[in-house]
Amino acid sequence: QMNMNILERTQAAKNAARRLATTSVEVRNRALLSMGEALLTGVSSLMEENAKDLEAGRAKGLSEAILDRLTLSETRIGGMAEGLRQIAALPDPIGQIISGGRRANGLEITRVRVPLGVIGIIYESRPNVTSDATGLCLKSGNAVILRGGSEAIHSNTAIAKVLIEAGEKAGLPPYSIQFIETTDREVALELIRAEGKVDVLITRGGESLKKFVSENARVPVLTALGGNCHTYIDQNADLRMAQEIAFNAKVSRPSVCNAMETLLVHQKVAAQVLPSLLGRLKSANVEVRACVITQTFSPGLTLATEEDYANEFLALILAVRVVGSFEEALDHISRYGTQHSEAIVTGDYATAERFLAEVDAACVYVNASTRFTDGAEFGQGAEVGISTQKLHARGPIGVNELTTYKTLIRGSGQIRE
Amino acid sequence: QMNMNILERTQAAKNAARRLATTSVEVRNRALLSMGEALLTGVSSLMEENAKDLEAGRAKGLSEAILDRLTLSETRIGGMAEGLRQIAALPDPIGQIISGGRRANGLEITRVRVPLGVIGIIYESRPNVTSDATGLCLKSGNAVILRGGSEAIHSNTAIAKVLIEAGEKAGLPPYSIQFIETTDREVALELIRAEGKVDVLITRGGESLKKFVSENARVPVLTALGGNCHTYIDQNADLRMAQEIAFNAKVSRPSVCNAMETLLVHQKVAAQVLPSLLGRLKSANVEVRACVITQTFSPGLTLATEEDYANEFLALILAVRVVGSFEEALDHISRYGTQHSEAIVTGDYATAERFLAEVDAACVYVNASTRFTDGAEFGQGAEVGISTQKLHARGPIGVNELTTYKTLIRGSGQIRE
Repeated sequence: QMNMNILERTQAAKNAARRLATTSVEVRNRALLSMGEALLTGVSSLMEENAKDLEAGRAKGLSEAILDRLTLSETRIGGMAEGLRQIAALPDPIGQIISGGRRANGLEITRVRVPLGVIGIIYESRPNVTSDATGLCLKSGNAVILRGGSEAIHSNTAIAKVLIEAGEKAGLPPYSIQFIETTDREVALELIRAEGKVDVLITRGGESLKKFVSENARVPVLTALGGNCHTYIDQNADLRMAQEIAFNAKVSRPSVCNAMETLLVHQKVAAQVLPSLLGRLKSANVEVRACVITQTFSPGLTLATEEDYANEFLALILAVRVVGSFEEALDHISRYGTQHSEAIVTGDYATAERFLAEVDAACVYVNASTRFTDGAEFGQGAEVGISTQKLHARGPIGVNELTTYKTLIRGSGQIRE
Repeated sequence: QMNMNILERTQAAKNAARRLATTSVEVRNRALLSMGEALLTGVSSLMEENAKDLEAGRAKGLSEAILDRLTLSETRIGGMAEGLRQIAALPDPIGQIISGGRRANGLEITRVRVPLGVIGIIYESRPNVTSDATGLCLKSGNAVILRGGSEAIHSNTAIAKVLIEAGEKAGLPPYSIQFIETTDREVALELIRAEGKVDVLITRGGESLKKFVSENARVPVLTALGGNCHTYIDQNADLRMAQEIAFNAKVSRPSVCNAMETLLVHQKVAAQVLPSLLGRLKSANVEVRACVITQTFSPGLTLATEEDYANEFLALILAVRVVGSFEEALDHISRYGTQHSEAIVTGDYATAERFLAEVDAACVYVNASTRFTDGAEFGQGAEVGISTQKLHARGPIGVNELTTYKTLIRGSGQIRE
């Protein structure tokens, strides 16, 4: 594949997609299982390639959060293989009847799920995306063209090579999986402008990728970008529960998009909940950026700025703000949130229902950690990422979200007057 | 609204959308009914404004097909009012539970339908779109910003004014409906680049609009563009049925997107079906562009060119081509079709099923006229147009397609390990 240009790649992908669309689910599942086994067989060589990325990353001074996301361990490669097995075990989305019925004139109308066709994926950092995304695209009958970030180029290239070889051996049409070996921006530009050649582009990464794609893309886009997620502790919250949820939302895995970035606390309970919660966060090495009221509970905390409220830290950093009312919490979330995952902890029924109704986000929680925003946790299976857009898919992008539908109309000579 | 710029308009729309999202369906339906009544009250002034457009159109030398689509009669205005009544009668899409259930950890997960927010619509020609699109957007709880084509500017402005006044009187939030009075391209450009301000842009028009939007848009787009639709008469077709379907697909309303533009006929039945069908089309004033074999059945027909096969005539013009096989028909459709509506007439079961499975289009027909591609005919209610894209909506864009969803998660203290 090395020397193909984007036009050749998309044409090859289109041919593969046409064949994939009528491939039986047995073939697709067998390929997924073979790909998983091949990853396990290749563990040591994959880790060697990953070491090159980590070394380059350290030399470039990448943050610990990014290096963590970049790291492949035997466990993580095992997780990738297990991910492919789980995708193989999912029900086949293709051919599923979404709705339908017979009209008065006798026409039988059936809306049926079909693959999107050719999916382009541009992503950053985590090399497991190479495997997860490929598995999901294939399961849903699509051809995929992957373009990963420069930080993980060695890891991604190695993973893709393993997947492509195992997939073809297992009977997938050639060019069902393609990986772009260069991280040249011009090539990415060609890909996102390949109108009519790429059916959907999925982007997963940070703000600069978002900007690049939104300014240049001519193909339809599904974005899985950042999450600036909030937890709001209401005046009627169970404060013990609130502490557990807030601590979990920040600390359990700070480098992922569903982690909490700002904690909002109602002023009436701030004095009860903040001193011990701030202490616990400090013990867990969380750096707090505090509003002036929060500072009174733990002198010496850095003052939070506008930028802190707008920032997705993806690290053990947390902004904490005391709000005067439920409405002030809603306003803060509306102003700074990225419509990803937002949570309230409250014991009040009406407040909970208002939060669910009025917060405009992909996932809205009452009395649970935002960390649950995840395809598997929602019972949808694995996902390519969490969409924060409103068109097509909002929340986890799983196998169903990688499909479209067509309407089949079976008649017996009907004409329209 | 006259003097507002796009930034002010989108901000006003966003405020309206926030209020609309929690407006009861009674308020929305009452507004729709009032808007319909106001159109009927305004018939004579609307027709006066429409006459200005028709006069300008004739002076500009617009084709009869376009002038037909542009014309407002008392019947058509009545149809617009009836359309709004039908939209009011549709079930409320907002709040509908799409899926959900309880997870093993006790989380209650509910995927619920919500409005998209602010919808921008750029459309050409037909003034009834102003009323239909507004009604559908409001029914689904969205604020709408309309931008019509220059050919219908007087008609559209007059219709929008009636709708805005009636809507506000009936209790809609101010700026729920906005109409851009200028057809200046710079203003359209600002609208389609209003990233983060417009949730979805719907475009309905021809190739130049498509190009303009795909090259410049930075907001997510739903396209309802042209349809280059085919009818293929298979060797095993009931030839009487085939004639009726083909005639209907071309002649019943040639100016709309679901009308047939090219007829494909299997060579084995060409001699049986074409002579009488060509005669009947001629009697109906259909101009035929014929392949060389078709010419043998009716000498003197113009030879069809590549451009004819690629063209959406939207008029009483039809390309006719005899194909050597079913596969050749599939190839022709794959090459020239716009993935709108494609039909086969056949009595063979396996051929019918292959056509349904292998043709990649929004709507695929067996033994019926492509003219049925329409929200109401499919039982979905009225629509803004027919989407030929794969993301979000494919086929009729009705009230459900003008919504997104969010996931509500109700917990009791769950945290993630």
